[in-house]
Amino acid sequence: MENRGDIESGDLGEMENGDQWVNNECVIMLAKGELKLHRSRLQLSQMEEGSVLLRTELAEVCGTDVHLMHGRLDLVPYPIIPGHVGVGRIHASVGSVRDVSGVPVKKGDMVTFLDVLDTCNSCITCLVDKQTTRCPERRVIGISCPANGGDVKGLLGCWSSFIYLPPKTKIIRLPIALPPIVFMAGGCGLPTALHAMDRACIKLMDRVIVQGSGPVGLLAAILALHSGAGQVIVIGAPAHRLNVVKAFGIDWTVNIQEITDPSDRLRMVTDLTEGRLGDVVIEATGRPEAVAEGLALCRNGGTYVVVGQYTDNGDVSINPHHLINRKHVVMKGCWGSDFSHFHRGVQFMAKYSHLPWHQVVSTVFSLKDASKALSCVENLELFKALIKPGT
Amino acid sequence: MENRGDIESGDLGEMENGDQWVNNECVIMLAKGELKLHRSRLQLSQMEEGSVLLRTELAEVCGTDVHLMHGRLDLVPYPIIPGHVGVGRIHASVGSVRDVSGVPVKKGDMVTFLDVLDTCNSCITCLVDKQTTRCPERRVIGISCPANGGDVKGLLGCWSSFIYLPPKTKIIRLPIALPPIVFMAGGCGLPTALHAMDRACIKLMDRVIVQGSGPVGLLAAILALHSGAGQVIVIGAPAHRLNVVKAFGIDWTVNIQEITDPSDRLRMVTDLTEGRLGDVVIEATGRPEAVAEGLALCRNGGTYVVVGQYTDNGDVSINPHHLINRKHVVMKGCWGSDFSHFHRGVQFMAKYSHLPWHQVVSTVFSLKDASKALSCVENLELFKALIKPGT
Amino acid sequence: MENRGDIESGDLGEMENGDQWVNNECVIMLAKGELKLHRSRLQLSQMEEGSVLLRTELAEVCGTDVHLMHGRLDLVPYPIIPGHVGVGRIHASVGSVRDVSGVPVKKGDMVTFLDVLDTCNSCITCLVDKQTTRCPERRVIGISCPANGGDVKGLLGCWSSFIYLPPKTKIIRLPIALPPIVFMAGGCGLPTALHAMDRACIKLMDRVIVQGSGPVGLLAAILALHSGAGQVIVIGAPAHRLNVVKAFGIDWTVNIQEITDPSDRLRMVTDLTEGRLGDVVIEATGRPEAVAEGLALCRNGGTYVVVGQYTDNGDVSINPHHLINRKHVVMKGCWGSDFSHFHRGVQFMAKYSHLPWHQVVSTVFSLKDASKALSCVENLELFKALIKPGT
Amino acid sequence: MENRGDIESGDLGEMENGDQWVNNECVIMLAKGELKLHRSRLQLSQMEEGSVLLRTELAEVCGTDVHLMHGRLDLVPYPIIPGHVGVGRIHASVGSVRDVSGVPVKKGDMVTFLDVLDTCNSCITCLVDKQTTRCPERRVIGISCPANGGDVKGLLGCWSSFIYLPPKTKIIRLPIALPPIVFMAGGCGLPTALHAMDRACIKLMDRVIVQGSGPVGLLAAILALHSGAGQVIVIGAPAHRLNVVKAFGIDWTVNIQEITDPSDRLRMVTDLTEGRLGDVVIEATGRPEAVAEGLALCRNGGTYVVVGQYTDNGDVSINPHHLINRKHVVMKGCWGSDFSHFHRGVQFMAKYSHLPWHQVVSTVFSLKDASKALSCVENLELFKALIKPGT
Repeated sequence: MENRGDIESGDLGEMENGDQWVNNECVIMLAKGELKLHRSRLQLSQMEEGSVLLRTELAEVCGTDVHLMHGRLDLVPYPIIPGHVGVGRIHASVGSVRDVSGVPVKKGDMVTFLDVLDTCNSCITCLVDKQTTRCPERRVIGISCPANGGDVKGLLGCWSSFIYLPPKTKIIRLPIALPPIVFMAGGCGLPTALHAMDRACIKLMDRVIVQGSGPVGLLAAILALHSGAGQVIVIGAPAHRLNVVKAFGIDWTVNIQEITDPSDRLRMVTDLTEGRLGDVVIEATGRPEAVAEGLALCRNGGTYVVVGQYTDNGDVSINPHHLINRKHVVMKGCWGSDFSHFHRGVQFMAKYSHLPWHQVVSTVFSLKDASKALSCVENLELFKALIKPGT
Repeated sequence: MENRGDIESGDLGEMENGDQWVNNECVIMLAKGELKLHRSRLQLSQMEEGSVLLRTELAEVCGTDVHLMHGRLDLVPYPIIPGHVGVGRIHASVGSVRDVSGVPVKKGDMVTFLDVLDTCNSCITCLVDKQTTRCPERRVIGISCPANGGDVKGLLGCWSSFIYLPPKTKIIRLPIALPPIVFMAGGCGLPTALHAMDRACIKLMDRVIVQGSGPVGLLAAILALHSGAGQVIVIGAPAHRLNVVKAFGIDWTVNIQEITDPSDRLRMVTDLTEGRLGDVVIEATGRPEAVAEGLALCRNGGTYVVVGQYTDNGDVSINPHHLINRKHVVMKGCWGSDFSHFHRGVQFMAKYSHLPWHQVVSTVFSLKDASKALSCVENLELFKALIKPGT
Repeated sequence: MENRGDIESGDLGEMENGDQWVNNECVIMLAKGELKLHRSRLQLSQMEEGSVLLRTELAEVCGTDVHLMHGRLDLVPYPIIPGHVGVGRIHASVGSVRDVSGVPVKKGDMVTFLDVLDTCNSCITCLVDKQTTRCPERRVIGISCPANGGDVKGLLGCWSSFIYLPPKTKIIRLPIALPPIVFMAGGCGLPTALHAMDRACIKLMDRVIVQGSGPVGLLAAILALHSGAGQVIVIGAPAHRLNVVKAFGIDWTVNIQEITDPSDRLRMVTDLTEGRLGDVVIEATGRPEAVAEGLALCRNGGTYVVVGQYTDNGDVSINPHHLINRKHVVMKGCWGSDFSHFHRGVQFMAKYSHLPWHQVVSTVFSLKDASKALSCVENLELFKALIKPGT
Repeated sequence: MENRGDIESGDLGEMENGDQWVNNECVIMLAKGELKLHRSRLQLSQMEEGSVLLRTELAEVCGTDVHLMHGRLDLVPYPIIPGHVGVGRIHASVGSVRDVSGVPVKKGDMVTFLDVLDTCNSCITCLVDKQTTRCPERRVIGISCPANGGDVKGLLGCWSSFIYLPPKTKIIRLPIALPPIVFMAGGCGLPTALHAMDRACIKLMDRVIVQGSGPVGLLAAILALHSGAGQVIVIGAPAHRLNVVKAFGIDWTVNIQEITDPSDRLRMVTDLTEGRLGDVVIEATGRPEAVAEGLALCRNGGTYVVVGQYTDNGDVSINPHHLINRKHVVMKGCWGSDFSHFHRGVQFMAKYSHLPWHQVVSTVFSLKDASKALSCVENLELFKALIKPGT
């Protein structure tokens, strides 16, 4: 096992000895704030029975990666290879490996996979409380798997020429009609937004209000529209993101950079809904103060889904009499997603591949431009960036 | 129509001319802070087709009455006759009047009635949103009906010798096995607590934590126990109320006057539940800060019902990341109650009349002692007071 | 009150004395199998406080009317004026009459109304069981209201120049963007189908199978598609109806006249769904044997909604081990609809008025051709017929 | 590995060489109808990492065993060791083995375990449809595991001195307050009945009707009572079983051997419920015709849970108009159970150990009397039989 490259050099090495070796290039986040491009030659014989090696087609750069870069998530075992969602072709597999439909995978198949490697299926949380997204054993590729750039089994992140999928990873073949770049426009936000839909229980003709116009907010609005909402209103910023929202057929947007006072926004939503407010409100902002505003936007007996508070950005002050008890509202936290959301996400993108997803994923970076990709995501210049290794 | 009495005099007058007249004595709340004992002779011929006049057996004095006395509720049309829950005997009725089971009522029947006189059954809130407890037409005996002590039709409150039930009032005959004083131990808190049960969806063996040991908290704990909870923990005060809680078979109580730090209480509940916290937590305190504490007491994916915030006591500061999103919790406001809760309440009390309800309703006052009754309730000396007119 | 016409003559009479009189023409179903055209001059002064008189724009002829003609429904108080769904302009109103949004109606407004005149809002079924569609007091215009052609208050059916709406009838103003003929394409099947959607709880990307391609089946398929179904399969006949189904964007249809063996249809659905069968199956056939077939079409743990068995067409033989217990299926009967369905129906049609509804309502009849309209509906020549009085 | 015994001899052999060997005696069902007592000396060194060997305290003989004996279940890999529910003490374990709460097990612990060894947690059924009880990989101790009496790893049934629990078997420690024989009174029927409770969603004061007075029917009635049902009616036979039902506090029973006509039973239930019928009806009979009767016993909008149709006993004829569509009923099949039910079952029995469970488990048999135990269960002489190896 040798490290034959350095951060400047990005070319792929040659394989020696048949299928036995691959030269890999990946980005390693050594610690909060430190990225390094890493090259190594990896022995395939170390792959476990039931495992798969993917040649990465596209990897995602999302808000979680920004949080990782700033050290905002707990218990991250730096160094890691970032990138928790990706698409690739089967390069190698050991033994009989089947996709989640039971069909054996074969070399060259274009696949994606559930980033959550382990829910234990044996603890109280999984089996009695049935909250698999809260299983303490949960381990996520690209987030909570330590990198080991010298071992093929350590390629547990997508910012890498190759991705190692341990035995039992849930693999889905991309439908032929679904180009990888379109699938990646959904990316990690899609299962999150689908989970929010499950929580929201939208009925035909419901008035749905989405707070936030980042990837999750955008996707929640699109999913709500196609779940039968009669009206979808997105409250967010900046204007160029709201324009993308509109390009997906969502006609009502409220720009918080223009309408800066929450009481003015409440008045706007009141008007737009003819006084009825939201049957369902979905928070996808990450800003604590949005929660008080969102409750006020719910009708009496409405549903409020809080899906955007993925990191601790502090507290919010709420009046429980006016906003909870008297409103008779239902508020639901929404953490993570499970395989059902991921699976439906692939189906959704295949069915709705004609939507203007190119406006969501406009830019593809090379591995060595990973930190530039991170900046673009952090500065909201892009909804999300993609990395294509080998470019 | 004449006012023949004054606040000192409490004796009943004679009826003249057969059934035509009754002498009534009632307490009128003229405005915030002002009570007056009022006597009048009332003409039954003014009763409407389909209406009923009850001779009051027992009337309740509850926390709502304390709020009314302090002017804490919005839109109260003072002067009013307080007392929204009561029991009485049918004294007179006009035309065909049936109880909610379709059985005609007859003179002498011991009945109770839904205090909510009108939900319109014709507005968007009632018919489309199906939130009848939020219907803007809702009018409640003893709270939102102006008193008119000179007209039998104005006897719309229970602190009165007679209570007028307008046409369409939902009347329930008390089962023979249910003494009025036992029914009144449930009183207005019972439908509220039953509504909270509907929201809570308790499953067999759930761990249920109740915040608050006032009437609603006590009843919620009792109902949870008899809904199949495996464990019920009540967090409240003072000690004499927690003793009553224990008398109903609830073995775990936490006295907030002894364990004053919320983090200590969280630790106690963690221990009592072997680290699993509450499947269901029910807030019945009226204190905003209880909401943050209650969320912390929920397990991941648990349910939190907020039923105690009936008046505006200010804001609470909540961390939406830790307490809502990451906990994947469901929080439900719970406002008012509807006839189904009231109806089931009567059935519950009939089935469980053997429980030690006498510890809940220990004191019966006369009309002229109404303000003393209010003080006892406000000072938490009593769970609830009862008024028996004519004593 | 005089009957000045006969069945041959169809012209409207003149009004005398200002607004006081209208000449009305209506179809009366005297008894099973007997229709009569009836003309009368009606005095508006008999209208009740809070009532409305509509000048009929369009009236529906649906399968229920065929059942009425054959005497298949219980407890119908013949003679009746058929036609339970219609649209008309406000011709007159007495006192303050508001639509369900609280806006006063005025002469000339184009409105529709809930055909269910009374749910009592005071019985156990309405208030405790909360099954308003099963309220024994329910009375439906055009079905269970006796005709009284000589009194304006008897115009309780839509096959009439004028329709009388008693006080408290729930009135909805048609949105300007919704032409009456488009609204009538939904007609009575729309709230029924919306109720079925509520029962079905379709999640995004669900596979939905609809049995039946009559009005309710067609509408259920359209609603399922716009509720986020990933795939909708309609099993029905004849071919021209399935072509209309396809015109609404439902790509999978199975013609039962071609695939006559249920086991072949099961195989087709198995293939179309890649072996996964229906997450949701909706029965809208009226044929008992469809229920056994429909259960077989559900996946394990799927949902089956039975909405088509509106009359007693006999029994079906079911294997409860294979089709219910082992399948772990949920089967839901679905009876009638309530105002929420009707209200959402109007909103749905306004939002989706661009769909090819003209293929559903192709023919408009005059009152005197009512029996021809009935024949066309009975013979499945048309999805539904419309009657336009005065033509 | 040697077979040193024969069917006549029942004595335990000696262990040689420390903990290395155990002499085991078990009952093997060679094929439908054929039982054999089998003795062997088994080498513990063959145990897998993470596995456990239990010394059996008590094993269950239930209706499933009767079905196995008659060859009524599909795909049973005879020969098997019957007995899918049991209690035993930890005799040996390999490596770190923890109970489901995460506590390491140690020799001598009295434990029970989930009989379902594998749900794959990786197929569409488990992960997308979330119907783990329908996972095709499901393998159940005592039912679908082939016996291998010569290998400790083949002791996959409870009618055996020792039971082998493969790695990942879900183990629960019996609470000290719960005697094994009391736990076994719940046995396999308890998680099944708890699953039925989850499906039934009983609300406080619901009227619950249980069809069937076998173990599942009895337990469903007990659980319903303690889930807050206001009234529980059991319809079953014979009289001695109904007496046991009554001993658990269920006051209303209907003996189908006395009231033989379903319409008479409907009338009785109508009377007992004051015309309101069942909010919830639970079928636990195994007789197809019960399904038509049970639907008739539901109120409009009620819930019907079908949990008793575990084998194919033929069809039932149902009128879908009267019993499903018009009743607006919800019917739910209920197949198997999962760990959550098993876990709550242990908690339930610990809390309710004071109930008269001795009336349910009256007789304990030795291994060599297994066929006599089967007869007693089949003839309904006993609710359930227990086997205690070594007696």
